[in-house]
Parts: sequence; C-alpha cells; structure tokens
Amino acid sequence: MLSVGIVGGTGYTGVELLRLLAGHPEAEVKVITSRAEQGRRLDDLYPNLRGHYDLVFTAPDIDRLAACDVVFFATPHAVAMNTVPELLARDTKVVDLSADFRIRDAQLWAQWYGQPHACPELLERAVYGLPELNREQIKTAEIVACAGCYPTAVQLGFMPLLKAGLIAPDSLIASAASGTSGAGRQAKIDTLLSETADSFKAYGVNGHRHLPEIEQGLTQMHGAPVRLTFVPHLAPMVRGIHATLFARATADVSDVQALYEQAYADEPCVDVLPAGVFPQTRSVRGANMCQLAVAVPQNRDTVVIMAVEDNLVKGASGQAIQVMNIMFGLPETSGLEVVGLLP
Amino acid sequence: MLSVGIVGGTGYTGVELLRLLAGHPEAEVKVITSRAEQGRRLDDLYPNLRGHYDLVFTAPDIDRLAACDVVFFATPHAVAMNTVPELLARDTKVVDLSADFRIRDAQLWAQWYGQPHACPELLERAVYGLPELNREQIKTAEIVACAGCYPTAVQLGFMPLLKAGLIAPDSLIASAASGTSGAGRQAKIDTLLSETADSFKAYGVNGHRHLPEIEQGLTQMHGAPVRLTFVPHLAPMVRGIHATLFARATADVSDVQALYEQAYADEPCVDVLPAGVFPQTRSVRGANMCQLAVAVPQNRDTVVIMAVEDNLVKGASGQAIQVMNIMFGLPETSGLEVVGLLP
Amino acid sequence: MLSVGIVGGTGYTGVELLRLLAGHPEAEVKVITSRAEQGRRLDDLYPNLRGHYDLVFTAPDIDRLAACDVVFFATPHAVAMNTVPELLARDTKVVDLSADFRIRDAQLWAQWYGQPHACPELLERAVYGLPELNREQIKTAEIVACAGCYPTAVQLGFMPLLKAGLIAPDSLIASAASGTSGAGRQAKIDTLLSETADSFKAYGVNGHRHLPEIEQGLTQMHGAPVRLTFVPHLAPMVRGIHATLFARATADVSDVQALYEQAYADEPCVDVLPAGVFPQTRSVRGANMCQLAVAVPQNRDTVVIMAVEDNLVKGASGQAIQVMNIMFGLPETSGLEVVGLLP
Amino acid sequence: MLSVGIVGGTGYTGVELLRLLAGHPEAEVKVITSRAEQGRRLDDLYPNLRGHYDLVFTAPDIDRLAACDVVFFATPHAVAMNTVPELLARDTKVVDLSADFRIRDAQLWAQWYGQPHACPELLERAVYGLPELNREQIKTAEIVACAGCYPTAVQLGFMPLLKAGLIAPDSLIASAASGTSGAGRQAKIDTLLSETADSFKAYGVNGHRHLPEIEQGLTQMHGAPVRLTFVPHLAPMVRGIHATLFARATADVSDVQALYEQAYADEPCVDVLPAGVFPQTRSVRGANMCQLAVAVPQNRDTVVIMAVEDNLVKGASGQAIQVMNIMFGLPETSGLEVVGLLP
Repeated sequence: MLSVGIVGGTGYTGVELLRLLAGHPEAEVKVITSRAEQGRRLDDLYPNLRGHYDLVFTAPDIDRLAACDVVFFATPHAVAMNTVPELLARDTKVVDLSADFRIRDAQLWAQWYGQPHACPELLERAVYGLPELNREQIKTAEIVACAGCYPTAVQLGFMPLLKAGLIAPDSLIASAASGTSGAGRQAKIDTLLSETADSFKAYGVNGHRHLPEIEQGLTQMHGAPVRLTFVPHLAPMVRGIHATLFARATADVSDVQALYEQAYADEPCVDVLPAGVFPQTRSVRGANMCQLAVAVPQNRDTVVIMAVEDNLVKGASGQAIQVMNIMFGLPETSGLEVVGLLP
Repeated sequence: MLSVGIVGGTGYTGVELLRLLAGHPEAEVKVITSRAEQGRRLDDLYPNLRGHYDLVFTAPDIDRLAACDVVFFATPHAVAMNTVPELLARDTKVVDLSADFRIRDAQLWAQWYGQPHACPELLERAVYGLPELNREQIKTAEIVACAGCYPTAVQLGFMPLLKAGLIAPDSLIASAASGTSGAGRQAKIDTLLSETADSFKAYGVNGHRHLPEIEQGLTQMHGAPVRLTFVPHLAPMVRGIHATLFARATADVSDVQALYEQAYADEPCVDVLPAGVFPQTRSVRGANMCQLAVAVPQNRDTVVIMAVEDNLVKGASGQAIQVMNIMFGLPETSGLEVVGLLP
Repeated sequence: MLSVGIVGGTGYTGVELLRLLAGHPEAEVKVITSRAEQGRRLDDLYPNLRGHYDLVFTAPDIDRLAACDVVFFATPHAVAMNTVPELLARDTKVVDLSADFRIRDAQLWAQWYGQPHACPELLERAVYGLPELNREQIKTAEIVACAGCYPTAVQLGFMPLLKAGLIAPDSLIASAASGTSGAGRQAKIDTLLSETADSFKAYGVNGHRHLPEIEQGLTQMHGAPVRLTFVPHLAPMVRGIHATLFARATADVSDVQALYEQAYADEPCVDVLPAGVFPQTRSVRGANMCQLAVAVPQNRDTVVIMAVEDNLVKGASGQAIQVMNIMFGLPETSGLEVVGLLP
Repeated sequence: MLSVGIVGGTGYTGVELLRLLAGHPEAEVKVITSRAEQGRRLDDLYPNLRGHYDLVFTAPDIDRLAACDVVFFATPHAVAMNTVPELLARDTKVVDLSADFRIRDAQLWAQWYGQPHACPELLERAVYGLPELNREQIKTAEIVACAGCYPTAVQLGFMPLLKAGLIAPDSLIASAASGTSGAGRQAKIDTLLSETADSFKAYGVNGHRHLPEIEQGLTQMHGAPVRLTFVPHLAPMVRGIHATLFARATADVSDVQALYEQAYADEPCVDVLPAGVFPQTRSVRGANMCQLAVAVPQNRDTVVIMAVEDNLVKGASGQAIQVMNIMFGLPETSGLEVVGLLP
C-alpha cells in the first residue's frame, strides 16, 4: 500500500485526488496540507467526502511529507519548486500537478510565469507527465510534471497527425472551451455564477500560459518547431474541456480515422470514437478518459480534431494518479475505472 | 455472481443502473431490453459506458429475463405490472423502479394513474422499497417497489420526528426542488434547456402522483393518518432533489439534532450533518446517500428539515441496487461506495 | 427631466438602475460614484451599456450628489445612513435600495446588522418602499427605503389573505429560492459557478436579515403580530426569486383566486395569473413585475401562494424607479415597460 | 403605423419579434398565425407578454396576411416559399427569417435542404438581409431573406479583412458556439436540459446548412470564391453566439484594430471593442448588437476575430426588424434600442 501525501488539498484538483484515491486499492492518503485550513476536517470543507476520510488538514511539514512514498502537489504555480528539491533528496517521489516543472527551458518558464525558476537544475530530471507521449520515461522518474488541462487535450488531439507528418506544422489552430473549475476554487468576481452563467467568451487570446507548454510537446512529436494559435474560451459549465483543432493537410488524409484508431488502440485512457460520432464533455465527466473524433469536412484540406476530457480528471488529478500508477508499477488504471456521470 | 436483467434501459434510471452495476463486484448485467433501440449498442446511446459494457439492447423476451436472478424495471408506470406476474411465477425476483407497486390500495393507484391496476392481487406481496423503513421485509421479498425520488427524501426527512411523535400530523409541508432528470429522457418542450435554464417554477401544486405514496409511508411511520401539503419545483439543474420540510412541534424539540443523529446512526445511506450545517445537492451527486439537516429557526415551534439526494441514485437506481443487495444477502452498499462528484 | 445620482454604481443593482434609466423618458443619470472604480468608464465595466452612456465613475462628492433631484443608494448596508442626513438637509430626495432604513425599530436593526444605526432619528421619516402597501406615503416622502428582494415577493404574496383575515398569523411559512445575483457582485467562493451550478441548497435557515423586515410588513398588513418561518435557498441561476408561501386557512378560502385578482386589479406591477397557471421566474426576467398564483391543494386547509419576480428589478432597481416615479408624480411605470426576456 | 403580420409565431424567433415590436413606436402586430395553437392567447403561451398584447393565434389566412404592410415568416424552412409568391403578388412586403430565400442558387438550396425550391424564380428578387452588407438593396426590396444566426456573426467578423484583401481566402476557419435556443422550441431529446447542461460538443462538423450561405456572403465580399471550415458547437446556455474566426494574413495586419473600427464606425448595430477587450455573449443578451474584437496573437500571421451576438436578436428577430425599418424608411434602430440584460 503506497502512502500518499497531498500538498495544497483545498482546491479542486485536491478534492478530486481525494475522490479518486478513496477508491484506489493500493494507495492511501496519509497527509494532506493546507496553511489556510489547518485543523479543519476534510469532510467539513468537502461534504462529499463524509464517510470516506477521517483526516484533517495540517500545516506543511517536510518530515511528514518525506515519510510518504509519493507526494502530489495540487498547488498554484511557484509553490512546488520550493519544496520538491528536499523531497527528492529524501527519496520521496513527486507528482506535480502545477506548472513548475512542465517547461524545460528555465528562461521560457520565467518569461511566462513572471519570476525566476527556483531550481532550474531539476528541470531536466523532471519528466513531462503525458503518459501517451512519455510512458517509458515516467516509469523511472523521480519527479513528473503532469501535463496541464488544455495541453493534454490539444496534444492528444494533434499527436497522431504530427507523428505521421501529415499536416503543416505552422498551420495549427486550437479553439478550446473549458468549464469554470479550471479557474480553481478562488474568490474572484470573474468566475461567479452571475458573471459566467448563460454566457461564453474567449480569454487569454494574446497569450495563455499553456501555449509554450503545448508548443514544446507538439515540437517533440513533430521533431521540429511547431506553431500553434491557441484561443481558450470559458463555457458556462463546471467541468470539461472541449478542444477543436484545425490543421492543413499536406498529404492524403482519407485514412485519418484509421490512423487515430491505430495510434490509440492500446491506450487505456484515450478513446477514439467511431467515424461520424463527435464527443461531448459530459460523456467523460468524472472519468479519466480523453475521447477523440476526427473529420475532414467537405473532403477539403483542413483536418478537424475534437478532443474532450474532464479538466479535473484526465486534465489533472486522474492523470496524476495514472502517472503515479506507472511510476510505481501498478496497473495503469488502478483507481481510475470510474464511469463518466451522464447525465 | 448475480445475473441481472434490465427492462427499459434507455432512460436515465437505466443508464444509472448500468453505471453503478459496472462497479458491482457480485452482479453482472446479462440482458437489457428496449423496443425502440433494439440492436443498438449500449455505448452508442451512452458513450460514458464505452469500455465498460459489450451489450446491445434487445427486444423484451420473457425467457431471457426469467433466466436472470433479478430483473429491474426502469420503465414508465403501467409497464412492469404486465410482466411482473410471470417473472414471479418463474421465481425471478423483481426490483421495480416505477410506480406500479408502490401504493397498496389498488383503487387509489387507479385514481392517480388513470387506469385500473393490472395485478392488484400482487400489491400486498410487494414490499415498499425504502430500506430505512422496511429493511426486514425487503430481505425476504420477491418483489420490491422502490420508493420514488421525492418520496425518499420526504419520508427520510420526516421519519424520526413522526416516529417520536413530536409533530402535528396534520401540519406537514414539503417544498421540494428537483433537477430536470427527474422528468426522464423524453422529448418534451417543457424540459428543454431553453425552457428551464435560468428559471425556477412550481408544478403539480394541485396534486402530484408522489403525494399518495408519501402519505402512505408517513402514515405507516406515525401509525395514524398524516396529511401533507406537497409542492414540487423544477430547478435549473440536471440531478438532485432538495426537500425542505416544515412541521409544527407538539412537544419539546430542543434535542432534535440528537434525535436525528441517533435515528440514522447505523444507516449506511443516510447522513445527518453536524448542527448548523445545511446540505447541498451537489455533495451527493452520483452517490447513494441522503444528507439531512434539522433546525428550529428562532427556537419557535416550527421544525425545518432539509434532505438532499441524487434523484437518480438514492432516489432511484442506487436505492434499487441497495434493495437488491438486501434481497440477496450481499453487503448493503456493495457497488454503491461511489464518492459524490463535487464540484 | 429629473437629474439622478447613483451612489455605489458598480454592483448589480447599480447596472440595473442604469439599464432601466437608459430608457426612462424623464430622468437622466448625471452622477455615478464608486471609490474603487473612479475614473473608469461605465461601459468599460459594463459593456452592455456601450452606446447608452458617456459617463465615468467618480469619487463620492456630496455637492455633486446634492445637486441632483434624487439620489439612489445601490450600496451595501451601513453606507447610506452616513450620507443620507446631509442630502435630506439639502432637499435632495433619496431612494435607498439598501437595508439601512427598512426597519423602523433602531434596536432591532442594530441586532440584525451588528452595529448601531447612524441616524435613528430618521427612521420614522423613512417610508418603506413597497408601492402596493404604502403608495400614498411614498408620494410625499423625502426618503424611501425600498423593500428587499425576498420581502417584496413574500409580502405581495401574503398581503390579500392577511388583509382579509383568512389565515392564521402564526402559521406562515415562506420557502423561497433566489438566483445568485442576489448575493451581489462580490468576490466570494460561495457564489462561484463551480460552487453553485447544478446544485441547490438552503441557507440562513436560523435567521436571515430579511426576516424582521418581512415580519414588520406582514404585521402592518394584519394589524397584529405575525410570525413567519422563512427559509431562503440558492438556485443555480442568475436572476429570479420564486417564493412558495404556505398558510393555514381559518375561514373559507374557496374564493381565494377572486380575492387575489381583485386585490391587485389596479396594480401595474403585480399580475395574478389565471387559476391553475403557476409562475416561473423567467417570465419576469428583466421586467418590473411580480407574477402571483394561489392554490388550495386537495381543497384542504393549507393555502399555497407562489410569487415570482426578478430580484434585480421588482426586487430592487425596478422597484426603486417605480418609487421615484411615485415620489415625483410621474407615470408609475415610466421607464419600466420592459417585456420579460423569455426564453 | 405599419401593420405587421407574423407567420409561425410560436417559436423563439416569434416571441422575440413580439417582445421587440411591443416597444416599436411605428409598428403594430395585427395578425399572428399558428396552426397548432390557433385560438390560444399569445400571453397564455408566453406569459412574459401579459399586459403587452391582446391577441390570439389564428390559422394562416392569406387575406388577413395580405392586408398587412409587412409579413414576417418565423417558420421552419420550406414554409415561406409556398406563401411568399402570393403575398408579393398582392404588394405585401415580406421579411423571411427562415432559410428559404437566403441562397441564390436554387440547386445548391435543394442540395442542402433536401427538396426542390418551390419558387426559384423569386430567388433573384430576394435581397440577403445583412444590412451591413446590403443596406442599399434592402431599401427597395419587396422580400428580404434575413441572414441566419451563425452567418451574421461570421460574415460581420470576416468582412473588413476580406474587403481589404488582407487574408488568404482559402484559409478561413470559424469555430462558433451557440446556445440551445438556436435549435428552436421543439420537442427533442437532444436539447433537453438534462442532455445539454454542463456539457459542450461540436455538431454538424461534416456540413452545416449555414455553410453555403456563409460562403456565398464571404465570396460576395471578396469578389472571388472563399472557402471556410465551419465547426458549430452547442454551449450550455439559452441565448448567444460566439464566433471565433481565424485567417492567415497575406499582408501587414498591424493596423487591424483601426481597420475594424473604421469599417464599422457608422454602423448602429455593430460595435468594435477597444483593443485588448474581448466580447462575451451576455453583453448583448436581448440587444440588437454584434460586438467584435480582433487580435493577432504573438504577432504571428494568424488573425483572430471574435464576434458575439444574441442569436435571437441580431441573429434573427432584431435583424428582421432592422431590415423592416430600412425597407420602410424608418430610423434603422427604431424599436431596437434595448440595453443588453447583464448580468
């Protein structure tokens, strides 16, 4: 039984780790930290956990964390990078759900996150946690930087075409919509129900922090620089990301359905829908699954890929547990065989 | 391993049975029927089930159903009553999620459902499926009529006070709100998103079919006739029932919190919240749990009880599986230890 | 043309005053204040106002406000009471949308609002702004304290029965649901879309600040003390209040439909629906209208009244303009003939 | 005072025409037809209209319609084309909100709508009703085919760049999201709240009926064939369309903000937001306005345009009234100066 620590357990990725780990047969949460809520019972903050946990939030304590087999960071950016070095030094493995170790170039990180990186020397040891791209490296990693929510959907969507070299790498466009849980559990006017319900808008059009992370991954797939136009949108829903991807074909794409089916045939957490069926976010609500569809409208030269995921599951906490399972040699979907909640 | 049949599996209670039974260690769905969808794969209609089932809808066939250990009816009213007699005759147990066997008085049933009952002689053999009220009878029942969604919340809410004789039995009021999934998966203008989103309304004020069922249960608890004013409302959400109950105290109710905590101390699917904490439907979304709170505002003489449940789980399919577990001597919450999906 | 000032124009009641006054033929907004947003264009904060106003928020300035014919306070409680005395001294009329002048008893106010009242001597000069109850007094008032959102629906709902003396004054129950805009435009976790969508809950069960205000009004109608059990709920929608009211009849109520129709026959902003039709909040979205229905379920002795309003219009800003029209002798619905936005 | 007839007034574009015309100073609805609802009061079906209309739905009658100055068709496709010839023959002007007269090529129409056109000879007399593109022709038209909801947003979004010749005409992409009211007031499972709330999906990816209409308009602007990849999505909201448009720049686009501001400087129903501000659908809820923003992310070569509108107003009924105003020489925004309902 793995002993698990969670740093920053009061946010949505924290509660989602707890929900999924409650049903994990080989992992048990031993420590969960929160400065703001220390001393408060978990299930007082999250009444859905009543009866499943008998834990209280505690102040972060390096010794208690280091005593765990694995520590998840479910924190805002710029937190993990200050604690991870000591945990690694004490042989505790780390799964970081935040952005701290996703970008390999410390200067690029500093530019997008507005501060220098605290431990740039660790960046090359960190494995980017997209299992479908980096499964082998994850198996032996000490620290994994889980892919972000938008980046997971966009990268899984483009990967087969990019690897097959069928699209122009400077033509990529991603128009994606997310539910408000992606903005976290923070007191902000912008994500009040009164401000977001029954409305739809784009944001971050001139530069979203997920852009360099996505371009880094797409470039890895393609083997040469890839340029993406990325426009995220806020949809009036709690969970779910829907990415609609566009690329100009540079070769015959009449077999693109078969290409996708084969590319993901052995992937337990990616599901290519039958031709002509398009995904909806609700089908994967609560499930660690990315559902994909691909089309070539009017048989012209633009390929359209649609990818859906639950941003809190395959886009965050579920993927983190998938990563943990791989790191520790457990069955990859252990604790993750949850059926999506539909309707 | 129990073999399970489901009649009418295309509706929301059907897909919810499938979602929960996918994780049940001792039950397996063998047959699922639908005249309208026969030949269609389950997971084509419900993409959240992809990878969990390899079944197709079939036309109803009495032999295939009778070969199951238990058959669930997830049908509109007036369907089960035409098939149940033969299944019982062939020793197949039945869990009916519809209204056909809930009301013991055949004439009362006929009056509210607008047609004569097809097998009134079976009504006294049917056990009313509210485990917290009738667990012993369920253990040996051949057929159980699961409590309806509103009736579950309202009866669990009033039960401790009624059994303790602390409230006036002619003063009961239930103001309850349900999500639209309670109206089923049917093509109706009234439950379009365009008609129901960002709006709230009462309906069935002059007489909802759940009224006689609730009054029958409350009368059983009280041991004498009880009269209820019941006003259901439609809330702009998919899942969830919130019942707000009012009763005039006829004795000291200063210990009402303790009364509720004791009454439900051993119940695995009812959870009394700490004093001063009020439930929200999302805490039990997807979970087979009724969360309750009780208050006496201003220390006056009106007791207020709040009860929440997921109408499709503790209000329907989860309760049906809880009933099945009891009928077959399985652990009562087998397959039901799902954590609520919050947020 | 009346010159209008608005104090605290950045909240939802502020933008709603602006929306409605944009179409008012005899009033023009001259000053709008906000400390936090001073210097910012109105239509930068509220893009729906683009093309309708050429104003910027300014810091509060007593001289500029006193130069207006009328000043609206769209502020949190405990703001207006510090400025109103000087405005009245300079003959500027005041319409206060906040709670400062609603309760006549300064001690009761202090008890519910947690601080002493700043100008208790003005309380008896303030008229309670529910036109259907106090139209004559409003005509000559210098300061009107507009009825709150829940109080408007609950009082209009009970008024005909209470005035007719047909219900027991100690039996009153109000179960009401509001959209999240009632909580204002404030950065709070509790009203994030992620926390409130697809969920329903009660709050303030043990004592909501609108309770003493409502009981004061009901007592005025009845001519003797009235006791109310009031349970507000939060519904996953932006606008709208639905109040479901219950009372025990003490006399024949078979003509209650006619009673309501007659009571409100001449009221331009209250609309009694035909018998058997129940209101929905969306029918009055954006409109200064309270729609009512009344029923006696099962012909028993409990009367049920349903009242809907847009909490920001008839429950706040629309009512404030209705009050202004009355105070200045304008047609009562001037600027208020907006059709509800359905769907 | 213009006398107005409405054919097919029971749908959402019908009630929206009625909402807006209620405030129009120079038009009065005299006839409203519906076979299904004949004899029923308007305000029984649409309680938001209570007090604003004293009309009942009548069966279609050519004489009563022909007696009007103008008849709006708020019908599904393939209805108007059977009645319009006779109305034109009797000198009644027609504003058609349906698709019947939008496409000039009768064969193309037949191909997308699955039946031959009933009066192909009228197609060249019909003016395409996008005032910003065809204002002069509308002034003298007998029949105007109002632009569809998606087509309005997409065409207004691309028009300045296309007319200026700054983008590659084979690179156009439109990723657009609509609320469910775009699917009309029809009993369908797909648009139930239970099926659409808290979810997001693409549809019609392989060919939506608005595609040929949009390409026809874009081709007119460009003066040569234009090819568009168009992916519509369903968002969990009632009203609103958000179109996110992408095009590859073929020339310097550093002044694109100024280009858009100049292009629409005199347009009363198109509003270019300040640089860096992105539109949200709620800002134009209920208003006859298209708000636009334009950006060139990372200063690369892809231009992104965002356009929002209320699909029932600028995307349908509001535009139809704007068209009527132009046809009859009235002020173009008469009856349309409604402020958007925010929040």
